[in-house]
Amino acid sequence: MDIRKLIDDAINERAEPDDTEFLIESDTLNLLRPMMHNAAKAIRRAILDGRSILVRHHADADGICAGVAIEKAVVPLLKEANNNSDAEWHYFKRAPSKAPFYEIEDVVKDLSFALEDVERHGQKLPLLVLLDNGSTEEDMLALMKVKIYDIEVVVIDHHFPGQVVDRTVAVDEYVDVHVNPYLVGGDSQITAGALAVEVANMINPEVTEKIMHLPGIAAVGDHAASDEANKYIELAADRGYTRDEQDKIASCVDFEAFYLRFMNGRGIIDTILGLGNKEKHGKLVNALYNESLKRVQTQLRAALPNLKTQKLPNGIIFNVLDVEKYAHKFTFPAPGKTCGFVHDSIVQKYGEETPIVTLAYGPDFSVIRATDAVNEMFGFNLNEIVWKLAKKIPEAGIDGGGHECAGSLKFVEGLSKKVLESFAKEVVDLGK
Amino acid sequence: MDIRKLIDDAINERAEPDDTEFLIESDTLNLLRPMMHNAAKAIRRAILDGRSILVRHHADADGICAGVAIEKAVVPLLKEANNNSDAEWHYFKRAPSKAPFYEIEDVVKDLSFALEDVERHGQKLPLLVLLDNGSTEEDMLALMKVKIYDIEVVVIDHHFPGQVVDRTVAVDEYVDVHVNPYLVGGDSQITAGALAVEVANMINPEVTEKIMHLPGIAAVGDHAASDEANKYIELAADRGYTRDEQDKIASCVDFEAFYLRFMNGRGIIDTILGLGNKEKHGKLVNALYNESLKRVQTQLRAALPNLKTQKLPNGIIFNVLDVEKYAHKFTFPAPGKTCGFVHDSIVQKYGEETPIVTLAYGPDFSVIRATDAVNEMFGFNLNEIVWKLAKKIPEAGIDGGGHECAGSLKFVEGLSKKVLESFAKEVVDLGK
Amino acid sequence: MDIRKLIDDAINERAEPDDTEFLIESDTLNLLRPMMHNAAKAIRRAILDGRSILVRHHADADGICAGVAIEKAVVPLLKEANNNSDAEWHYFKRAPSKAPFYEIEDVVKDLSFALEDVERHGQKLPLLVLLDNGSTEEDMLALMKVKIYDIEVVVIDHHFPGQVVDRTVAVDEYVDVHVNPYLVGGDSQITAGALAVEVANMINPEVTEKIMHLPGIAAVGDHAASDEANKYIELAADRGYTRDEQDKIASCVDFEAFYLRFMNGRGIIDTILGLGNKEKHGKLVNALYNESLKRVQTQLRAALPNLKTQKLPNGIIFNVLDVEKYAHKFTFPAPGKTCGFVHDSIVQKYGEETPIVTLAYGPDFSVIRATDAVNEMFGFNLNEIVWKLAKKIPEAGIDGGGHECAGSLKFVEGLSKKVLESFAKEVVDLGK
Repeated sequence: MDIRKLIDDAINERAEPDDTEFLIESDTLNLLRPMMHNAAKAIRRAILDGRSILVRHHADADGICAGVAIEKAVVPLLKEANNNSDAEWHYFKRAPSKAPFYEIEDVVKDLSFALEDVERHGQKLPLLVLLDNGSTEEDMLALMKVKIYDIEVVVIDHHFPGQVVDRTVAVDEYVDVHVNPYLVGGDSQITAGALAVEVANMINPEVTEKIMHLPGIAAVGDHAASDEANKYIELAADRGYTRDEQDKIASCVDFEAFYLRFMNGRGIIDTILGLGNKEKHGKLVNALYNESLKRVQTQLRAALPNLKTQKLPNGIIFNVLDVEKYAHKFTFPAPGKTCGFVHDSIVQKYGEETPIVTLAYGPDFSVIRATDAVNEMFGFNLNEIVWKLAKKIPEAGIDGGGHECAGSLKFVEGLSKKVLESFAKEVVDLGK
Repeated sequence: MDIRKLIDDAINERAEPDDTEFLIESDTLNLLRPMMHNAAKAIRRAILDGRSILVRHHADADGICAGVAIEKAVVPLLKEANNNSDAEWHYFKRAPSKAPFYEIEDVVKDLSFALEDVERHGQKLPLLVLLDNGSTEEDMLALMKVKIYDIEVVVIDHHFPGQVVDRTVAVDEYVDVHVNPYLVGGDSQITAGALAVEVANMINPEVTEKIMHLPGIAAVGDHAASDEANKYIELAADRGYTRDEQDKIASCVDFEAFYLRFMNGRGIIDTILGLGNKEKHGKLVNALYNESLKRVQTQLRAALPNLKTQKLPNGIIFNVLDVEKYAHKFTFPAPGKTCGFVHDSIVQKYGEETPIVTLAYGPDFSVIRATDAVNEMFGFNLNEIVWKLAKKIPEAGIDGGGHECAGSLKFVEGLSKKVLESFAKEVVDLGK
Repeated sequence: MDIRKLIDDAINERAEPDDTEFLIESDTLNLLRPMMHNAAKAIRRAILDGRSILVRHHADADGICAGVAIEKAVVPLLKEANNNSDAEWHYFKRAPSKAPFYEIEDVVKDLSFALEDVERHGQKLPLLVLLDNGSTEEDMLALMKVKIYDIEVVVIDHHFPGQVVDRTVAVDEYVDVHVNPYLVGGDSQITAGALAVEVANMINPEVTEKIMHLPGIAAVGDHAASDEANKYIELAADRGYTRDEQDKIASCVDFEAFYLRFMNGRGIIDTILGLGNKEKHGKLVNALYNESLKRVQTQLRAALPNLKTQKLPNGIIFNVLDVEKYAHKFTFPAPGKTCGFVHDSIVQKYGEETPIVTLAYGPDFSVIRATDAVNEMFGFNLNEIVWKLAKKIPEAGIDGGGHECAGSLKFVEGLSKKVLESFAKEVVDLGK
């Protein structure tokens, strides 16, 4: 009789989640159900196994909603499983990642601490859960390192993971359970926050009631506008948060995340997300929203008068800003967000159907935003332009990309002129 | 019978401090007595309540003297109240703030840890004590956040708090006890270090003997020169620290604070301030003072040959330095102090009665020092000039200010030329 | 009967290490034996004394090999002495120092924590062991501070310690035991890693078997090429690590150290150095080596096309690179390493016997590499040039130096043109 196997089987059985209904109707979610089931099961099994759970998530509204959803589902189960109110602090960690991928700086910390916990406290290696991060090629080196140590990895993400063949992508070599709408023909419109709340609902349906408004906030924060996104936004509205309030909350989370840096700020984030005292929630969201607005306006007051706008022969409104010179540095909003706010102010003027491209550059980087119209009318795809320029100017060490209409471009300072002019030429030549 | 109320009343009674005599005679102190009494009582009550005390202070000689004074008064009472030699580490924290105000970066950390202590260790929320910080408009956002969580706040500061109406200022909306000489018609010449030592004397008179020389060091460190400041300096001289030694100690604290960054460095600071082993004190102060002097001289050797000095038609000696180009970066002394040392070297040449203005600028900031003569002869007030320029050049995102004759000016890099020329014009036009 | 003395004597006797044979034959090592014996004894005595051991080492392959060697020797003795498997975590700390010397930033942290441990936990002050750091004038301020608190200091280093008189150097005023080949007429070709492994062998010969390949890795990492270095490299080859593998491992340690920053990364470093699971070792070294190579190639692709190379009249091939403009910033490889790789690519083209000087500069610094041929043919010594320039252009605040053919030059930004031109002139004038 193999007692070890008996125990494993028992744990495996108890780890099996109920297949609860999704919060909204969605074909993509239906197709993702097996992966989500596996994610929920892996997390439940880790709890029963006595492994700790390490959640890493992107440090924006979507990523934080995703991290908090898993946190709220897991913590009560940890207390129950360990019969110990202190267990959550030993067996659960949630940490934001500044980059939109799992960076080497992050994995080095995580591995160092995990290996020390093993050697020092006799703990088991943790289950790693990556949220709103983990699907792309940029995640691969970090994940490879994690897998060398045989750490189990769950990824719940909605970033474009590269070419999908047979519901698998490059990163799957190092990922045990991968939830991403692109794997089943979907796209980034179902946010990581929504996916994580649906998985949380499978892990521990008793907390769902409490976190049902998070996907709405995540959708608004990520500017998602699909049918599914709108259903989640309505769901949050039904729970007492108007679309406007969801937007405010998302702004506050982003603002606070800027200052929290490597801290998860659990208590404060709970208040902002309406998971704690309601009166404090109202006061804090108001205070933070007004302050973040003030800071955005300060940046815009410096940036807008120095924005160079021209209408190109192909009809595109092209805006260029030296964001290092004409915006405050090392402060909120950072260059990427500043570019977004500048772009939005131009979009407000000309309308969303107008093809508009905004380029904000510093000495060795630039941030790009474009309206969907540029993609629809001209087939604009930032990733393709980045690849083209990288090939054309190999000495510039070009790197970057992101979504089709939003992302970044990095290069060595000495070739900035050549890179930026080449980028501008690409925009001018669109439609030719 | 309301037992809760009985206990509260008992604690309240025991928290009542003796109204000990002040260390020096001063009308301003006499007027501040009720506020100081309340500050001492709030701190004593927190100890008896079992709340922890979180002291945040400006990271310069004055702020550190203030923080250490409260620390020395509180720690023995904590040990006594908890009958536990380890209590001080759980119930008392002292942390420097790099900025001269309570920054969002600081409050985010403090709240995160405080809320975790509540949830994880069942601790009560702390009493927050801000020293040499906390009185100005720049502190308001952080304080607002703290108050949303109902944390009690004591401020002991001597920075200009804005317009005083009926002994109240803007920040008082979020502050429970506010000690600031400006509230009773005084000014910044009574340092935070002096105020904190006087409050420490109310909290725990048994330690006063030990910390009586700190207000002298704080006064010398802050260049305070009023009658009260001089009385404190004499008091320290009576305790065996000549004015020259107080100056050396203040320099050493500033030098060490630069490297301590977010640490309080308790053991080292105690040695520097003469609160520990006397022989080590002598050796350490000598070693640090010589090293800091060497580093100042290195900066001056690079800066002085590149300082542009001219006598303006209005008689003002105007000095301009590109401190980013002609001084080492990211090292001691930082730009603000470097500007101070450069200014002092010019003052030494022409005398304190000469109107002298020194402007040290970098790509997106500048630091300004002026002799009191510029204020007396021309009504020079840095804060007014900052407001005027901010209005005149709104696209420059101007921010800053400070004291009348010392402070900073921040702006976006792209408008530096316009901002600096406008500032120079203000100086040229003084007396017109 | 003096019981204290009896105990001290007993500890002293038990601390006495066996004088084991060196791993290789070397006259320099034989001359260094008494110092190494004292180092081993001091470390063994600290263990028996109940003092903790704080190891600080340079954060490169050599320094890390040195730190790990001492760690592996000490940890089992700590467990034994304290009869407690947790003891190692309380009584042993290993931390990398980014600078090639013991910086004020480091000592401030170390002293703060040590003094808190004394006050809070009743611990004794630690024994400080500096590895691949500690011998030079730049270490003196930090060491002076440590000695004021009567902390015992052991230095094992191979950097040039300045003028040697009677086997003593400047830093010895503050160092209790100093092991450095220069003290006995040797040079930097015996690495700190080798010295530390030999000392580890004296401390605890039972672990020698396990760490015998580290000196080879340290030698390859430090480009050491003496007879002794080669013997260590052969020794590692005998243990199953070809020279090529040693080189790969050293590269991986450097790459990982860049991201570990202030962490020691014990678990990961053990895997890389082959001290843990062999299969994971192979996988991790491969993954990291390939990634580091990729990043080096990215830097070179940006740097090489922008490198200006000319043959001077004196026959020297002189290469100049604006490393701030033509290389990615804040990423691996950093400017110093980038300069090294650029230099190596030129050396590969012209051969090691060619006199080649490479200068990579940024706004306020430059990094210099030269082939030994420049030293042999022209008496090139970087330290001498730095001193000469510092004297010639005092307003530039020049600082720097290093080895004869590799090091750095720092200056204030505003005088960069003058400094760099003067440096170039020195190179042009070599041989005149």
